[in-house]
Amino acid sequence: MNRTFIGLDFGSDSVRAVLVSEKGEQLGSCVHNYARWAEKRYCDAARNIFRQHPLDYLEGMEAVICGVLAGQDKSAVTGIAIDTTGATPCAVDSNGVPLALLPEFADDPDAMFLLWKDHSAQLEADRINAVAAAWDGVDYRKYEGGTYSSEWFFSKLLYVLKHNPRVRDAAASFVEHCDWISAELTGDTRPDKIVRSRCAAGHKAMWHTDWGGLPPEEFLTAIDPLLSGWRARLYTETQTADKPIGTLSPRWAGKFGLSTSVVIGGSGFDCHFGAVGAQIDADTLVKVVGTSTCDILVAPEMPRCIRGICGQVDGSVVPGMIGLEAGQSAFGDVYAWFKRVLEYAGKVSIADLEKDAAAVAPGAGGVCAVDWFNGRRSPDADTTLTGALLGLNLGSTTPMLFRALLESTVFGARAIIERFREEGVAVKNVAAIGGISRKSPLVMQMCADIFNMPVKVAKSDQTCALGGAMFAATAAGVFPDVTAAMNAMGAGFDLTYIPNAANVPVYEALYQRYLKNGKMLENSAMR
Amino acid sequence: MNRTFIGLDFGSDSVRAVLVSEKGEQLGSCVHNYARWAEKRYCDAARNIFRQHPLDYLEGMEAVICGVLAGQDKSAVTGIAIDTTGATPCAVDSNGVPLALLPEFADDPDAMFLLWKDHSAQLEADRINAVAAAWDGVDYRKYEGGTYSSEWFFSKLLYVLKHNPRVRDAAASFVEHCDWISAELTGDTRPDKIVRSRCAAGHKAMWHTDWGGLPPEEFLTAIDPLLSGWRARLYTETQTADKPIGTLSPRWAGKFGLSTSVVIGGSGFDCHFGAVGAQIDADTLVKVVGTSTCDILVAPEMPRCIRGICGQVDGSVVPGMIGLEAGQSAFGDVYAWFKRVLEYAGKVSIADLEKDAAAVAPGAGGVCAVDWFNGRRSPDADTTLTGALLGLNLGSTTPMLFRALLESTVFGARAIIERFREEGVAVKNVAAIGGISRKSPLVMQMCADIFNMPVKVAKSDQTCALGGAMFAATAAGVFPDVTAAMNAMGAGFDLTYIPNAANVPVYEALYQRYLKNGKMLENSAMR
Repeated sequence: MNRTFIGLDFGSDSVRAVLVSEKGEQLGSCVHNYARWAEKRYCDAARNIFRQHPLDYLEGMEAVICGVLAGQDKSAVTGIAIDTTGATPCAVDSNGVPLALLPEFADDPDAMFLLWKDHSAQLEADRINAVAAAWDGVDYRKYEGGTYSSEWFFSKLLYVLKHNPRVRDAAASFVEHCDWISAELTGDTRPDKIVRSRCAAGHKAMWHTDWGGLPPEEFLTAIDPLLSGWRARLYTETQTADKPIGTLSPRWAGKFGLSTSVVIGGSGFDCHFGAVGAQIDADTLVKVVGTSTCDILVAPEMPRCIRGICGQVDGSVVPGMIGLEAGQSAFGDVYAWFKRVLEYAGKVSIADLEKDAAAVAPGAGGVCAVDWFNGRRSPDADTTLTGALLGLNLGSTTPMLFRALLESTVFGARAIIERFREEGVAVKNVAAIGGISRKSPLVMQMCADIFNMPVKVAKSDQTCALGGAMFAATAAGVFPDVTAAMNAMGAGFDLTYIPNAANVPVYEALYQRYLKNGKMLENSAMR
Repeated sequence: MNRTFIGLDFGSDSVRAVLVSEKGEQLGSCVHNYARWAEKRYCDAARNIFRQHPLDYLEGMEAVICGVLAGQDKSAVTGIAIDTTGATPCAVDSNGVPLALLPEFADDPDAMFLLWKDHSAQLEADRINAVAAAWDGVDYRKYEGGTYSSEWFFSKLLYVLKHNPRVRDAAASFVEHCDWISAELTGDTRPDKIVRSRCAAGHKAMWHTDWGGLPPEEFLTAIDPLLSGWRARLYTETQTADKPIGTLSPRWAGKFGLSTSVVIGGSGFDCHFGAVGAQIDADTLVKVVGTSTCDILVAPEMPRCIRGICGQVDGSVVPGMIGLEAGQSAFGDVYAWFKRVLEYAGKVSIADLEKDAAAVAPGAGGVCAVDWFNGRRSPDADTTLTGALLGLNLGSTTPMLFRALLESTVFGARAIIERFREEGVAVKNVAAIGGISRKSPLVMQMCADIFNMPVKVAKSDQTCALGGAMFAATAAGVFPDVTAAMNAMGAGFDLTYIPNAANVPVYEALYQRYLKNGKMLENSAMR
């Protein structure tokens, strides 16, 4: 019998499922867009407020699992594992039910999941950073790049406690999206029973074995008395995603037509799962290039603490190795922004823009951009930073502007690589996944030229979900470890971009200017 | 008999004539677009090369004078005076014929007029500045703001001498457009007979009575040995525009059907003539708001040398007063640039953009722009500076961007006013002329709010040509001086924008940020 596995990938706009056999055959896939999210019901983009209703997740999950199983041999399904965006936490009651699923909180955005890119909690992040910087003995942010973000777990938790007394009073705990949905599949979401993802906890909640889990109570209460008692209401233990957390509940098994013996694997964040889907190894940066980027490395040993990235966590990607995460707050979003600006006058496709931008020689337009349209994530997270178009003159054409925007995002990517190198982490290969990696040969060639390294593109267009399938297979005991699962189930790479030697020195000079411009903006009146 | 006068205004794209009676009745007007220029035959916008063929001027002049006289009483025509852009010089032969009118130079751009905005001569300007800065005793740039521009007379003269040996060998002298066309009408263009405009010489050629005219031979040869002997081939004397330079030649009189007794007045630059057309007085900055801006003040006494403007010249505007000129290198051009960027995707009108930009509250978008899209003219000329859009984020809408661009141009305008004030020159009123002054109530209201001063808009939409008519009337002896001509012939003002008190402090804060951003860019890697 050829056993099959479902990888379930909850993205920002949609959830997708893939069904993959233990031999790596992709037998089916299914995507579902979140209905409430599509209507932007609980969002205010201008203020960076982005909330998601748990019903979107439940309805989406049912739709894609049923969809991906249609016409398939259900008896072969052996495991399911889930990744989500993060930090995307939610307040839950004592049964682990997200408050927005209760009638009295059904329309309260603070009772929903605070999506990763929600920036409501900037003041709370500032407070956490101030207390952490002054804390005697240990900086609890040190494994998360030294700066705590408004996008992360405790910032959002504190924001909700401070701003919504009703939710504060009703909340028994807070859960990450990935942990809750996995627990939900097992039928037991009680907060003290939910298995917490190592990946989510280590990268976003300052969890570390050095201090016995989450930061101590006195640190949390020093941030805000409202956090008093919350450490005990959260968790101490975490688990890597290669371990099972339970089996499918009768209720969900009935809905899907699956056996209750189906194993539910551990959960994690999408990009980490994607890195696995892209067959990450110790020499390879996996860059998830989408609306924003997430850059993943794994290292066999713990390097020293790395300044200004999003974290280093033992086992967050490949168990047994240190997972390192960085990222850019905006990448494809920058292009989409520009497209929107142009759409004011009509309709234009990014493909057309790229074609014309490709005809502009590097640096020929004299236009420089800084890509911080959604703040900066790495190196040195700072959501207060903004983007810029510089060097504009009356001859600056739309393709020149667009090319500068493209280049800026790749320069931002290069800065992350350099930071890793400065900190002694070798980056020898780059593999790209995500929509842009397949849709934009121009950007991918820029990556090769600007990194001065070959950049390879993963063959699968569902690498996140594929990674989930690999974890599920490992969790189900089909493989001894995920490396074996990757070797067996990986889809490989079908494209490699080689640096164009003529462009490398041109881009090197432009990159140095990008760095200077960035430094200038950091010190500017735009802050 | 009601005597009439023709004012002839040669702009960047077209020439226009108005026929105005001594009572101020505007009896007719006529516009002609330059044919060769419209085809961009001798231009390369990306490299800021802009040349104009003398035939465009001659054909245009004939068309508009014949056009404006159609159906009019030609016997009443008493005088003609001319303004042009500048510095817009051209190499001429020993008869004062622009070389491009000779068959062997008919298609040589260096044998044509180098339009004011041509930036070919940047290296030559750099050289002039270097020598002038090191010169012992006197800085010959001191009455021109302390920085010599690539747009000005000697930069362009030297550029042509250095880059085109054929033109160098054939050139007997160089003439400004305004001086040549006026001389052409008199029938005598011999270089040693051409009357040179005080306005052109004083603002663009370092001419000053303090050093007996143009800078001395040893200074010019120190700049470049190629300039050796050129001082003697140019001029020593200049004339204010209120004095006659001759009468209409039989040839042109025949073409126009006019008498040879028609007086040709002195010539000058368009904005200076426009300031007169707008009835300038000692308290009023006249701001010519078009693709770029020119800002004119007059002062009864010589103030001390003013840093970083385009010059102060005795009699360049109103004879007997010091004419002060400043400007912004791009203003409407910035909007047009943005429109072009959007037109990439379709068609959009600036009126529509303004309507939507007007709905954005000042500062609400967080977007800041710096308006140096064509370098900076005043304060402190620097053509190497570039424009910028700062504070961009994913919520930055097209109206926000456009509003920031609009505001930046008005902040640039404010900086000029402040410089004047710092230097002890009072600016008590602002009058606006030029296309935008009548077309854009939003920008004009921004001017009032950002200057915190009322801004009035001249009634005539042909103020430059109207000033020419006034000069012609004075030159013809109809009035004792141009003030009398202005009083008699002025069209007045029909709109005044009053500052909106609620906006003033908001804009004040944004202006301070604009200044900081500008300082930042000046010190940046974009230089």
